[in-house]
Amino acid sequence: MRFTARHPRLCTGGRRIPSVLVTAENHARRRALLRAALAHSEVDALLVTDLINIRYLTGFTGSNAALLVVTTDDETAQPTDPAAASDPNRTRFCTDGRYTTQSAAEVPDLPRLIARPCAGALVATAPGGIVGFEARSVTVADHLDLQSSAADNPRGVRLKQTLDLVEKIRAVKDAGEIDALARACAVADQALAELIEAHGIRPGRTERQVGLDLDQRMRQLGAEDPSFETIVAAGPNSAIPHHRPTAAILAAGDFVKLDFGATVDGYHSDMTRTLVLGEPADWQREIYELVASAQTAGRSACLVGATGGEIDAAARDLITAAGYGPEFSHGLGHGVGLQIHEAPGLAHQSASIMVPDMCVTVEPGVYLPGRGGVRIEDSGVIRVDGYQVLTQTSKELRVLA
Amino acid sequence: MRFTARHPRLCTGGRRIPSVLVTAENHARRRALLRAALAHSEVDALLVTDLINIRYLTGFTGSNAALLVVTTDDETAQPTDPAAASDPNRTRFCTDGRYTTQSAAEVPDLPRLIARPCAGALVATAPGGIVGFEARSVTVADHLDLQSSAADNPRGVRLKQTLDLVEKIRAVKDAGEIDALARACAVADQALAELIEAHGIRPGRTERQVGLDLDQRMRQLGAEDPSFETIVAAGPNSAIPHHRPTAAILAAGDFVKLDFGATVDGYHSDMTRTLVLGEPADWQREIYELVASAQTAGRSACLVGATGGEIDAAARDLITAAGYGPEFSHGLGHGVGLQIHEAPGLAHQSASIMVPDMCVTVEPGVYLPGRGGVRIEDSGVIRVDGYQVLTQTSKELRVLA
Repeated sequence: MRFTARHPRLCTGGRRIPSVLVTAENHARRRALLRAALAHSEVDALLVTDLINIRYLTGFTGSNAALLVVTTDDETAQPTDPAAASDPNRTRFCTDGRYTTQSAAEVPDLPRLIARPCAGALVATAPGGIVGFEARSVTVADHLDLQSSAADNPRGVRLKQTLDLVEKIRAVKDAGEIDALARACAVADQALAELIEAHGIRPGRTERQVGLDLDQRMRQLGAEDPSFETIVAAGPNSAIPHHRPTAAILAAGDFVKLDFGATVDGYHSDMTRTLVLGEPADWQREIYELVASAQTAGRSACLVGATGGEIDAAARDLITAAGYGPEFSHGLGHGVGLQIHEAPGLAHQSASIMVPDMCVTVEPGVYLPGRGGVRIEDSGVIRVDGYQVLTQTSKELRVLA
Repeated sequence: MRFTARHPRLCTGGRRIPSVLVTAENHARRRALLRAALAHSEVDALLVTDLINIRYLTGFTGSNAALLVVTTDDETAQPTDPAAASDPNRTRFCTDGRYTTQSAAEVPDLPRLIARPCAGALVATAPGGIVGFEARSVTVADHLDLQSSAADNPRGVRLKQTLDLVEKIRAVKDAGEIDALARACAVADQALAELIEAHGIRPGRTERQVGLDLDQRMRQLGAEDPSFETIVAAGPNSAIPHHRPTAAILAAGDFVKLDFGATVDGYHSDMTRTLVLGEPADWQREIYELVASAQTAGRSACLVGATGGEIDAAARDLITAAGYGPEFSHGLGHGVGLQIHEAPGLAHQSASIMVPDMCVTVEPGVYLPGRGGVRIEDSGVIRVDGYQVLTQTSKELRVLA
């Protein structure tokens, strides 16, 4: 899924996006940040088993691996030293025989062990002391296996649960990540522009046809996949916040809510636009304008130092004041990156504090059951001078004939 | 993703496949099978948290749920009794508020609790005694939470690990499941036939273009999604067993290996065909015929009572005798169903014993690094009179101009 260089069409409206590559140096820097966190966690090493976290820390994209980050190893030694893969004091990567070639290319900068099971092999050869593991990734069955691997380790190892150590670091993006997210947003922008240009959103088509068309356009523009199951919700269905596309037929007068995104280099864009087929009714204009104002207020509140809950409130208060509080039934937004939902949270009472280079969505909505609903969503970056929108599609109410 | 009735094109070559619907009775029967297994497992109830297992036992397709199957509850009481959802002696389903409407439609036959977290709510109100949980599904972090829920239960609950109780039942399919798998196979057959008919596999196209084309055709024929990331491997890339489509360009003389499937009503088809562009060379004919003979031998060995290891050997021995043993570097096959890989295994030394209505793949291959490789794979059903192939595409060596 590394097709960036081969897809020169990754641009929107003539705006070519310069690519910032994620290199081995990025991965090494992320591991250094993790080691700094480990020093405060009273573990001698961290066993990373979550595959998204492994990708973040090493670049590996296969389906089976484990990583042992040793707190005291500054990684200055050569990874190609043949003894390195079995040296307990080294930060090491492990995968199985299917990925020998792929991991050599993707993880050139760490000693590699080829073994199965990966996590057990690393625990059995870990340095003595406390080895942290990711309690949200390791199942109870896996944990039993890890305990026997620890018992096999002659240096004496005690396993210790940890929570969200890597996820907290992932919440703040580096330049290569923001670049990938921007390219993912550009693919979604372009796909929607092409779909509208080709009259792909018109009365008579089904929600499912529109969704397939949009997905196919994103793939042709270089998306590895849609970021999630694309939402196309027409007419009364637009009042269902997370509606799966059905055989429902688009009709004149309908709101058409599209919530979708593209995955590029593993990064997930997320955008919602709500269009109207034919001249909008007064109630449609009213809730559209309300949601658009709330979305503007939410973006304006995305300031360094604000909490997720404060940002949510900035948008929600407008909707509540207009009498539609109960019709905005979900949180304002969420972090986006290697996962479609990740830290930080932007919802009622979210305590996460905004830091520069966090990437978050802002997506208020108002849903009137049986009639229709509006959601407007951007993906963007928290910057010192405010929220930088990455999804460039216009948020003016678009009327399709 | 329940579009079956809306896709009358689910047929191949004029062969219309009659649909056997999965109903609430199927789910009740599966739960009865599970209760029989629980009676031998010394648990008073089983907490099911694996979402695939929940779908299998209830029909629920959402992203958050738990199910508590009470060993002594024969489910004869009315699920709509308002007190049922909090009656500890009843088998109960729990999901969160996002799925109130969907779960009412999908799970009409069980008392429903709407709560969060789902698993905790069921454990806190379980009957006293031993509550089994799925040790391959529950993480260490989840387990801590379940332990506090158990402590909150006034009847006294002890949690106990279980392994594969539902998975073992899932290995043997009922008629509705085999029907869904047959429809998934028919979509893949039809998509490949249309792709070839449209000259979609030709010199000058990239692997990735061919893969996107095939995926889009499956979706248009009613697939919810491809079963997995479609493999299109041309020329030397065909020697890589699990190759991701790249920008490599198909050329005259190439083997083109296509390994793909469609998901229909949640069931995953899996088929590999290897074609050749232009007149095959002698070495290509030789390994193609060898793999085809091995595949026939493997299918013939798929007999009730055989072990997975014996079936694997039937195909492997032919390849080894021809001197290509090391070039057949993976197992012969695997179970297919709600997951693309599930029980039983068909690999070297697999001990699983074949039982009627198990659904398995048979997929030998020979891979010559730097030159090319062949794999031929069917999905089918173990029947008392032998292996019933569900993937209908011809296995004759197909030469494309």
